[in-house]
Formats: sequence, structure tokens, C-alpha cells
Amino acid sequence: MLRTHTCGELRKSHLGQTATVCGWVDKYRDHAGIVFIDLRDRYGKTQIKFDLSESSDIQKTARHLRHEDVVQVTGVVHSRPEGQDNPKLETGQVELLAQTMTVLNKSATPPFEPDGQTMPNEELRLTHRYLDLRRPALQKNMIMRHNLAKVVRDYFDERQFLEVETPMLGRSTPEGARDYLVPSRVHEGSFFALPQSPQLYKQTLMIAGYDRYYQIARCFRDEDLRADRQPEFTQIDVEMAFVEREDLLSTIDGLVAAMLKKIRGIDLPLPLPRYSYREVMEKYGSDKPDLRFGLEITDITDIAKDTSFGVFKQTAEAGNHVRGLCVKGAADKFSRRILDNDFKNLVGDYGAKGLAYFKVAGGKLESSIAKFLTEDQQKAVVERMKGEDGDLLLYVADTYKVCCSALAALRTKLGKELNLYDPNTFQVAWVLDFPLLTWNPEENRWDAEHHPFCSLVQEDVQHLSSDPGKIRAQSYDLICNGYEAASGSIRIHDPAIQQQVFDLLNITPEMAQAKFGFLMDGLKYGAPPHGGIALGFDRWVMLLAGCDNIRDVIAFPKTQKASDLMTGAPSPVDQRQLRDLHIKLADPPPAS
Amino acid sequence: MLRTHTCGELRKSHLGQTATVCGWVDKYRDHAGIVFIDLRDRYGKTQIKFDLSESSDIQKTARHLRHEDVVQVTGVVHSRPEGQDNPKLETGQVELLAQTMTVLNKSATPPFEPDGQTMPNEELRLTHRYLDLRRPALQKNMIMRHNLAKVVRDYFDERQFLEVETPMLGRSTPEGARDYLVPSRVHEGSFFALPQSPQLYKQTLMIAGYDRYYQIARCFRDEDLRADRQPEFTQIDVEMAFVEREDLLSTIDGLVAAMLKKIRGIDLPLPLPRYSYREVMEKYGSDKPDLRFGLEITDITDIAKDTSFGVFKQTAEAGNHVRGLCVKGAADKFSRRILDNDFKNLVGDYGAKGLAYFKVAGGKLESSIAKFLTEDQQKAVVERMKGEDGDLLLYVADTYKVCCSALAALRTKLGKELNLYDPNTFQVAWVLDFPLLTWNPEENRWDAEHHPFCSLVQEDVQHLSSDPGKIRAQSYDLICNGYEAASGSIRIHDPAIQQQVFDLLNITPEMAQAKFGFLMDGLKYGAPPHGGIALGFDRWVMLLAGCDNIRDVIAFPKTQKASDLMTGAPSPVDQRQLRDLHIKLADPPPAS
Repeated sequence: MLRTHTCGELRKSHLGQTATVCGWVDKYRDHAGIVFIDLRDRYGKTQIKFDLSESSDIQKTARHLRHEDVVQVTGVVHSRPEGQDNPKLETGQVELLAQTMTVLNKSATPPFEPDGQTMPNEELRLTHRYLDLRRPALQKNMIMRHNLAKVVRDYFDERQFLEVETPMLGRSTPEGARDYLVPSRVHEGSFFALPQSPQLYKQTLMIAGYDRYYQIARCFRDEDLRADRQPEFTQIDVEMAFVEREDLLSTIDGLVAAMLKKIRGIDLPLPLPRYSYREVMEKYGSDKPDLRFGLEITDITDIAKDTSFGVFKQTAEAGNHVRGLCVKGAADKFSRRILDNDFKNLVGDYGAKGLAYFKVAGGKLESSIAKFLTEDQQKAVVERMKGEDGDLLLYVADTYKVCCSALAALRTKLGKELNLYDPNTFQVAWVLDFPLLTWNPEENRWDAEHHPFCSLVQEDVQHLSSDPGKIRAQSYDLICNGYEAASGSIRIHDPAIQQQVFDLLNITPEMAQAKFGFLMDGLKYGAPPHGGIALGFDRWVMLLAGCDNIRDVIAFPKTQKASDLMTGAPSPVDQRQLRDLHIKLADPPPAS
Repeated sequence: MLRTHTCGELRKSHLGQTATVCGWVDKYRDHAGIVFIDLRDRYGKTQIKFDLSESSDIQKTARHLRHEDVVQVTGVVHSRPEGQDNPKLETGQVELLAQTMTVLNKSATPPFEPDGQTMPNEELRLTHRYLDLRRPALQKNMIMRHNLAKVVRDYFDERQFLEVETPMLGRSTPEGARDYLVPSRVHEGSFFALPQSPQLYKQTLMIAGYDRYYQIARCFRDEDLRADRQPEFTQIDVEMAFVEREDLLSTIDGLVAAMLKKIRGIDLPLPLPRYSYREVMEKYGSDKPDLRFGLEITDITDIAKDTSFGVFKQTAEAGNHVRGLCVKGAADKFSRRILDNDFKNLVGDYGAKGLAYFKVAGGKLESSIAKFLTEDQQKAVVERMKGEDGDLLLYVADTYKVCCSALAALRTKLGKELNLYDPNTFQVAWVLDFPLLTWNPEENRWDAEHHPFCSLVQEDVQHLSSDPGKIRAQSYDLICNGYEAASGSIRIHDPAIQQQVFDLLNITPEMAQAKFGFLMDGLKYGAPPHGGIALGFDRWVMLLAGCDNIRDVIAFPKTQKASDLMTGAPSPVDQRQLRDLHIKLADPPPAS
């Protein structure tokens, strides 16, 4: 090695020793004839001292050092002078008095300093990712990512799970609209697809008797990108045979507890709380509510129906809902402008036509529409909402679905703006009993809520032909701080039931055979009961690192437009390459 | 869990206990009114006994069990009757007397039995991979693969290497002819490329200060497939900063020793032997010789020059070589037909026009061409070859390159046919000092022997402009039993040297900037000295498992024609998908 110690290693116990360190010039100070540099590597920083009163080559070189130069310095470990310790650095009690120095590489003036003090715009950061990745915050995230992967692997390894690698070059599936395709050179006109998940492979592994499988797997989805999505992402993929839902839940309970404990030192009480889908929708309007705060939704449809407020009355009479939130002590926190514009626009984004609001005062309601409620109705509302003087009541009157999504968005906004929770805490819980199917009104058919392989809750099998919308799936989502942090299900292992579900989804036996015939075949030859789950690995790193930009936990992320600013990918390629792959551009670029 | 114990778990210590096991019906015997089945899972087999004299439903069900049915059985653990222990099974001293049984899933008659007794053809195996993967040999390989990954991860984790995930959706590089391309939906006419290796990303990580990186990384190469190659493969990818060659070699020495020790219980003496490229080519004609046996190449050009055997004489006079092998005690092992046909054809495949051979007898040579050598010349040959009576001498007279490749192939064949080594041993060694460049006569230019980022041996930098063919790279290959098991180098960290090497390779600054500008930029902003290596993970599993088909160590491999017989990938896709990706087929299929 070109060094004897890292830049994070020297302590008082090394006093008087000769040491060689290598790293980047992080800070440079010329102070009364003495040059100090902080030399930085992944492990820390060490102060190097050059006494310029001794004139030699090293002093000349030291004077010309610049930020981000890479140097190797040999010197003797000294105590820092009295009162000059730096308690922020682990090496802060010592300094290295330089004897020899080699400049291993000079740095041009970088487009930005990766010192963590200044934050350039993200485009510049991503373009020069080799510099950006030097920032201490990003290094910390990458180290946490490594540590989290280790926690996961150790956890599953101790429980006899096998890590099995599944193919990246797979087959395009029914959800193929979001597949990344890969043309084949050998098979003209045919394409591989990059996996959206290893779903079918892991089920195949269960059929093949591998019993317990896990993989930290790269997956791909070519979709419109949101802030917390990437075209390629990593999931902790798990499948178990001869299990029931309870086994999956307790296995993942243990995993999440290990992750929180080993990465953040937090003891998570187990078992994790469990909610039904119906319950979280009713209370929070969302299947992934942030449980770090209450602010539950309350229904006042029955009261609203009898009022003379037209919107309430008509909504209730049409069989729809009036639902709302009671925001404690917030009566005077928001101006009319905010309520009538910001909040109303927010719920409008989710389809709500308006937002009604009241203040609670003297046990009754105050607002421009309070007059449409009798005093008894006002008191009933206050009581139902558990309102107290000074509270703010907010209502949406609409279909159940619109009430849910609009109020869920409002609740999230209020939680954040009113600091209703400690951002350093974690509330993790299960949401169970999702509906198996959702009605797709545009296509006039049922879609799978999760995917077509979810098993049914046994007592709901009777509804298969009569009332499919009533069927609950044996599925489960793990939620954490308002994010979906994992999703899974017990799978169908009976080929007849599988075909019945395909029928419901308008997947004919021919289509099923063409698209995933191997799964259908596999189910015929002795498939064990099995189930699994996938945890979003990038998202868990993000949650545990306490950051809100997924690109800060991925070494080389893509932008929201799915491009890599550092490498310039994707890029045009040679015509010859396309010819070899038997494809051409739909609209060839104009000849230049 | 649907079971209390796995099928590999019950022992005499469980006698009298009630246990529930789940698994596949592996063997079925109806013996004097008693049905025995072996129930199989990943962990082992347990004998289940159904006493048919007690007539109940379970007995009827037992009579209808078939191979590969999946059942759950609850019963009491009994000793097997005296003399009926099965020492081959870990559970062989006990059996489970069935009390209740649930058939979890019936199996149709499978296309083949995965019992390991019969071996169907590979096409059938790959088509029904869910059955094939039930074979004990494949399960053993997959478990070894898991264990090997764990050894690797633990080794690097203990040494402060960080596991960093690099992108799969990258940019097409100069070796792009073998890139798998991925069309972009968002960026019309642009393509991602799947990585042939994470080379540029790992160098970027060193520039970014990550110091020690590893990844068990999926890589892709769209090339003509040989027996031991797959379109997607896995490599153990490593990079270290502030190191010299010695640091890399000793790090990997330790890794390989840990792999052999923990997976095979073999103590590998360290440091691993080291050879120069020149030395292995001289002795074995190959840069990846099988070192489990000797059979070294010996040069007799100087003697051959003076003989009256035209081929020898003219070859030597033309400045080419006469080189050969002395095969101990093999004078009578091969018929003339084999020597003149099989062996001659083999060396012919490598460009040799013929194969000369002699037997050693009475300290002299015997063969149809022995008469063209004087007695003194014959004795000189015998002495040079360290020949003894009964040895077989084999010669190729050609260019140095043809001699090397032809004799290397012959040596490999002889080693195998004459059982010159124990196939259960491992000979691992380093090959160092490869040439930096190889001359490409077709294109009339230099190509990089490894890749364009290899550092030069310091004392050879002087040849950069004068005699580039003389320059040795700071590269190293690890060889094991005739395979290249790893390959790496110290990298160039000086942008000026990097540009000089690009110049030699006819890569203009504009091309370099377009293709990997980010590396060139990164080198400018403080790149540390660094180097790395990549080990073929699939190949190491294959070597350690002692199998010679790479498809037997990959869960879902592709055929030699790069297709997946189970899923049917690659496959045609919807026109709509292609339209979304802004491409079309070069030759659209005829309308049907």
C-alpha cells in the first residue's frame, strides 16, 4: 500500500510514530509561515503541518498545493498544540509533521468543491458525479447502503434462505408496456425484456424446491419518472415455500427490526402493527398512510345529509360522502387565502370540487357556511369530530374514493406543515387484505390490484364468479412513514384457481400459455404453497438515511428524464450496431 | 409454517415426538401391505410409513400418491426396524409413522424424474427447468453458489471494501460491437447499453474516493457462445486505491485461499505462484496453462536447423521455430492413426501444417523421419527433451505463435487422455507482465491486450513512441486448472499517459471525449493511483463444484444460442411496444 494509515486512523496512541497517509487536499491554510492542510479520504481527515521555516523542496511543493490534489505524505505524529484540538475530528488531537511528500496527481480547478459546505445544482452534481460522490453526505449514504445490504444478507443467510441470481435477459410479460426491451442479435426480430421483478423466477424456484429464496435484485421499469423512482431500482426479493401469511409477516418483522436496530440503533416493538386495507382507507384515506401522526378522517355524512348546506346535502343524498379532518388548535394557523386557494387546489388535484372548513369556538362551528347547520347539527359535528375550541375542521364532499385521496393528500401536507411528527422516528406497519381486483372502467374489465398470481382469502373464493370485487387477496404491504416499503402476497399454487383468476382478468388460456406457460406448466408438476414479498431497497436506504431524494442513495442515478448526465447515456449508436440487431430507427435522423 | 421439521431434520433424538413434514414424493414402495414413501425437500429425505392394515382415509390417499405430489404429513417419529437403517440418509435411522396427511398439490406425470438417476437431454432439462432444478446435483451447485457468494462478501466486508451497485443501463463503449442495446422510450433514437463490465464506474468510484470497492456484478456480452460462456454472466468485481500491483495480488491470494478453504476444505499455500506471460508462453504455449501437470514445451530449433529434414530445416532457417513435447512413457500409447489423424488435425486447427513425432529407444529416435537426423542430432534431441526410452516426442515447426497455440492444445488433450492430474486438485497461479498491446494486422494498428486503461510497467514507458510492442502492462491474470479465473491491472491515473495510450490505439481525443469523457474528466480532478480485478464468479462455482458445464451452476441459463428454453425468451413483441421505443424491425415479418 502507498500508505501505512488511513486519514481517519491516527490518534494520540501513535504519537512519535512515523506514518504515511494518502488522500485529497481538503483544506489549505497558510498561517504565519506554517502551511496546514487537511488531508481527506473515505475514513476521515488528518491535519498535516508543513513548517516553512525549514526550507526544502517539500515546503515549496506544499505552497503550491490546491484543493483536490492527491498527495502522499510521510511524517511524524505530534500532539496538536495546547487548545488547538479539533473535537469534531476523530483525529483531532494529533497532526502529522510532514517530512516527505509526493504529489500523486494534481487536480484542475474543479467545477465545485465537494466539501459539503456548498451545494451546487443537481445537474452539475450529476454531470460530475466523481466529484459529487466525494461529498461526506453521499459517502455516508453509500456506506449505509453497504451496511444495510449486509444486514439483509446476514439475516436471510442465518435463516437458510438461498441467494439465487435470476436472469436480467428475460421475456416480455403482460405488463410489457413498461418493459425495457433488448433486441437479439442471434434471434432476428425477437427481444429480451429486462425484469420488472423476478416474480415468475422466484415462484419457479419454489416449484423447484428451493424452499427459501432471497436476492437483492436489480429491476427495471420504463415509466414516467417521479421524484422517488428510477428506471432501474433495487429490491430485496424474498419467497418462501410451505408458509402461510403469518410466516411471511413474522419473517419480515424480524428483518425490519434488524435493519432499524443495526443501522439506526432503534428498537422496533414487534410484532409490527397490522391494519386492514379497509381500515387505513377509512382512517387515513390512503393505503400507505404516514402513521407518525394521527389526524384521522371522520365521516359526517349522516349529519350533513340533514343540513341545509346544498353541497353536503346533495352529496349525501346521492349516496356519496362528507368526510373530514379535525386539525387540533389550527383554527388560526391558516389564512382564508391559504384555505381557499392552496388547500382547495390541493384537494382539487385529487378530484374534489371544494373544501369546506369551520373553526370550533364555544362548542359550535364558525365559518361562512356554519349558518347552514342548526345549532344541534353543529354540536353533533363537533362531538363526532372530537373537536375542541380552537380546532380547524376541513371537509370534502364527494365519492368515497375522492374523499380518501383528497383528504390523504391534505393530511400529509398538514402533518408536515404543522410538524405533527418527529422526522427521526419510524412508524412501520402492515396493511392487509387488499382487494384482489380493481375495476378498470376505461377498459371495462377487472385488473389485478397487485399481480395475477396473488392467492385469494379462502372464505372469499365463493365470490369468484358472483362478485369478484368482494374478493380479498392474501396480500400485504409494509408501510413506513407514508411510503410503501414492501409489497407481497401468498401466491396461487393451484393451476385451476390460477386459470380462474386469469379468466377474470381476460387472460385466455392461450395468452397465459404464450406469456408465462412455464409457470402454468410448473404449477402442474407439484407446486408447493408459497408466498413472498419485495422490499424497495433504494427506498429503505433513503428512509434510514433520512433523506428525501432517491438519487442521493444511488451511486450513479438517472435524472427524472431517465438519462445519466455523467456518461451521457442513453446515446445514439452506430448504424452498424443497429443492423447487427436487425432493427432500425422509426424516424432516422436527417443525414448530416 | 405448514411443517414443524424439514425433511432433513429428524433423528433418533426425536423418537416418540409428533412431527409434521412437507415435501415431494420422491420414492414410493408398496411392500406387503405397507406403503413407504421418501418425502423430499431441499434439506433431505424422510421415510414415511403408512400402515395399510389400519383402514382409514389416509391409507386410501397414500395408495394414490405419485412421484412429485406435494404432501404434508403428520406422524410420530419411530426407529426403523432392526437392520433397515439407511446410512446414506442423514435421517436414515428413523421413519415417520403417518397419522394424517394432506395432499397440498397433485403432480401430473412429469416429463422426467428429477431423481438424479436418469439424465434427460439438456433441451428437455432446460425447457422444464423447474423440474431439473429439483435434481440433487443442481441443488448442491446452487447452494455452493450461495455459500461462495457469502465467502466473497464476508472477505471483502472484513477488509473495509464497500459494495456499490453500478448501473445496468449504461452507455455503449468502443467495444460496443458486443453490447446489448436497450432502446429508450424517452430519448428517441438513443440507446442504453448493458455493461460488459463495470470498469469505468469502478474507476470513477476510485476517483470519487471510495478507496475499496467490490460488487458481485451482472455483466453482458452479446458474442458467439462457447461452452463456458453465457450472454449474461456474473463477476466478482474489485477495485482499490493507493495500491501497487503487490497489494492487489495479495488481496486476491487471500480471497482465493478463503474460497478453497471454506468451500472445499483445501489449504492453498500462499503466496500463489507467479509466472511472467513470457514464461508461461515459453513453457506451456498458453497464457492460461493447466498447471496440474508438467509436460512443458521444449525448443529444438537450433538442432533442427542442421538436420536434413526439410520441414525442420526450412522452418528454422526462416527464423521460425521447432518446438515440442516429451510425453513420458507414451511411445506405445497412441496408434499411427491417432498420431497422423487426430493429433495432426488438432494442431492443424491452430494453424500447424504438420506434426512430427519420434519414439525414444536406446537413447535415440525412431520414426519414419528419424533417418533425416544424424545420430549426434538424435542424441542431442533426446538430451534436450530429457527423453528416456519409451517416451513419445511430438513437434510442431512453425511461427512461434502457431507452435504455442498448437502445442498448448495438444498438451491439454494429452493431460486429460493420459490422466496426468487429479481432477479434484486446484492449481492456481498468477500470470504477470502481459504485453500492453497486440498488433492487429488486419486493421494495421495496435489493439489493447486487456483494455485501454491498463497502466504501463514503469521502466517500459520509454518505449511509448519508439517500440510500443515492447511495453508490458501492469496487468495480471489468475489462472486455475487451465481457465482464466480472474483478470485485472493497475490503471492509468495520469490523464496525459492515458491520452498517449489512446493515441497508440488510434483513439482520438474527440473519440475519447465522446465515448468516456467522464473518465477523462475524472482523471483531471485528482485521480488516485488505483487498480483492480474481476473474477469470473460462474466459472469459480463451476471449478469448485467440479463440473464442466457452466449451465449447471446458473439457475436459469441460456442455451448456446442465447435463448431461454423455459420462458421462450427472446420472443417477438407487440408492434405497439416497438413504436413506443421509436424503432422498427429491419425486416418486418410477413403479415399473417
